[in-house]
Amino acid sequence: MATIAGSRRLRRTPFSDGVEAAGVKGYTVYNHMLLPTVFRSVVEDYHHLKSAVQVWDVAVERQVEIRGPDAGRLMQMLTPRDLRAMLPSMCYYVPMVDETGGMLNDPVAVMLDEDRYWVSIADSDLLYWIKGLAYGLRLDVLVDEPDVSPLAIQGPKADELAARVFGDAVRDLRFFRYGRFDFQGQQMVVARSGYSKQGGFEVYVEGTQNGMPLWNALMEAGRDLDVHAGCPNLIERIEGGLLSYGNDMNRDNTPHEAGLGRFCSTQTAIGCVGRDALLRVSKEGPVKQVRALRIEGDLPPCDRAWPIMDGQMQVGAVTSSARSPDFETNVAIGMVRMTHWDAKTDVDVVTQAGVFPAVVNETFWI
Amino acid sequence: MATIAGSRRLRRTPFSDGVEAAGVKGYTVYNHMLLPTVFRSVVEDYHHLKSAVQVWDVAVERQVEIRGPDAGRLMQMLTPRDLRAMLPSMCYYVPMVDETGGMLNDPVAVMLDEDRYWVSIADSDLLYWIKGLAYGLRLDVLVDEPDVSPLAIQGPKADELAARVFGDAVRDLRFFRYGRFDFQGQQMVVARSGYSKQGGFEVYVEGTQNGMPLWNALMEAGRDLDVHAGCPNLIERIEGGLLSYGNDMNRDNTPHEAGLGRFCSTQTAIGCVGRDALLRVSKEGPVKQVRALRIEGDLPPCDRAWPIMDGQMQVGAVTSSARSPDFETNVAIGMVRMTHWDAKTDVDVVTQAGVFPAVVNETFWI
Repeated sequence: MATIAGSRRLRRTPFSDGVEAAGVKGYTVYNHMLLPTVFRSVVEDYHHLKSAVQVWDVAVERQVEIRGPDAGRLMQMLTPRDLRAMLPSMCYYVPMVDETGGMLNDPVAVMLDEDRYWVSIADSDLLYWIKGLAYGLRLDVLVDEPDVSPLAIQGPKADELAARVFGDAVRDLRFFRYGRFDFQGQQMVVARSGYSKQGGFEVYVEGTQNGMPLWNALMEAGRDLDVHAGCPNLIERIEGGLLSYGNDMNRDNTPHEAGLGRFCSTQTAIGCVGRDALLRVSKEGPVKQVRALRIEGDLPPCDRAWPIMDGQMQVGAVTSSARSPDFETNVAIGMVRMTHWDAKTDVDVVTQAGVFPAVVNETFWI
Repeated sequence: MATIAGSRRLRRTPFSDGVEAAGVKGYTVYNHMLLPTVFRSVVEDYHHLKSAVQVWDVAVERQVEIRGPDAGRLMQMLTPRDLRAMLPSMCYYVPMVDETGGMLNDPVAVMLDEDRYWVSIADSDLLYWIKGLAYGLRLDVLVDEPDVSPLAIQGPKADELAARVFGDAVRDLRFFRYGRFDFQGQQMVVARSGYSKQGGFEVYVEGTQNGMPLWNALMEAGRDLDVHAGCPNLIERIEGGLLSYGNDMNRDNTPHEAGLGRFCSTQTAIGCVGRDALLRVSKEGPVKQVRALRIEGDLPPCDRAWPIMDGQMQVGAVTSSARSPDFETNVAIGMVRMTHWDAKTDVDVVTQAGVFPAVVNETFWI
């Protein structure tokens, strides 16, 4: 594919100097910011992620800070997940929907205090939706993008590396909980979370100037662990069934279609602006839904939605695909109609390089 | 720079097949969509744009359609430009601001009917802000992204090429007016507008399936005019002082700082949500403002904001820069503080490759 043209509009991150020094080879753009996609090769990065530990510049997970007396009320307006049990120290994966139940983003919300949240967003300007709602409804909240940039530590040796830099107490963090840990005199929010299935942490680095010192400290401390610069890995995230907003679902889809019904409690999510629209689908279920698929053959890159066909009838679309070395097939994510979503259903996938046979898989590869 | 990693999230356009066949060499990402940045070379594209005619895939100028009884009221809420004199057949450049007067986008609004507009957006999800406002204020409007993709015809021979495809009446279009013209039995909205100073048109192509037929017809009809695939040209747009949202201004800036005061009539823009915040700055003027600058030396690509210094004091930042063959200098756009914004003021510009002398220019190069 072509090269990417740099500009201020494609924002650099607090870790960009480290990313470049590590020899980044490919980028995508995410929230108007550069996100690395490959360092050595996607396959080499994949094997390394599964066996060692990587440090990821995921500053593109921009934060929307919501603060003030109406913060909690506004948060519940945004999502069909019931937030009543959420407490400071917790992170929640929260599908966010508009008044039609269409997904606007699928962030992780971090509850910092009773009246203060960070919403760690996927690729859309969720800030604009939240600001519009807050203004239109005259809510007493501040809504802004703070100077906070997540850095992820991912891989089987992530606990060891994090403990060396933040102390052994970080090992006790439970999944989707966060704590505050000292780094060179600064208290940093560290959560057990991340966009891989290999385990690890996300550090919410406050202040651009604190980015490279942490990056360098992790690289230094992890030398004998074979730490490398890495990034979300296309193969690993598809194997693990980690959805990507804009790829696997978008504003056309409900959370239920995206297979996120378990994060919705629409009946009790009182105040959610999409509640009316979602009540019916939450009872009856969706007509199409995300599925894992295996595709056979020598596929081109999945740079567009690939129609899934049964003869002349379209029954869905593949939205992400990659060759898996470990599972020796093309692993894929697609949206499939109810008539064809059962495991072992045979279908055809129409790519820009021809038609390939595929089968609906029982589960993702985890 | 590195390569760009394709994915469905970086959407293709109705014209992508034509763009690829024409040998696109570089992309940026804009509104979650691919925008070509170079075909032959930026300099070759530049000379050609100024002497012949180009067809541009600017589908990234996504439309926000606003329709319904409250459409006009909502439009005026979005901008400090007074829209009372706007009529169907007109396009308006409309800075859009939040409740603090910070710029959220700088689109071109197309008034299709008394109660129907297309807002042709720069690089931010303006749809989310407008949807949030409309929901919060319970306005009777539809707000959505239709299947409409602009294709631009730009260059000194644009009138001739457009006339061959849409008929001679297209020559009579005045600047920022549009008409409906027949193409193969379809009525298409064609406006005299575009992101260059070379003149031309933007065709609002409705329906993805109509993209390549129009692209091919233009390429065919313009063969003896030396028509080429092109794209917004970095050098030409800086020479012409065409601002780029996200590069030259963003949510931190008022329209007045961006030098767009002439498009604001804050006093009479009754209903604009940013009116209170902008009334004072509209009277007293901003403390910093966009300026043209000449920079001497062999500059690196402007992929980040470059501090503008007077000794140890920062007095602004360069946000776009390119080497101009015609003017034999580096042309640049920057935000400069009042103390240093007068023409001929000498300053220093700090880039990633060292410090370079610069001077504030009287005007852009037009």
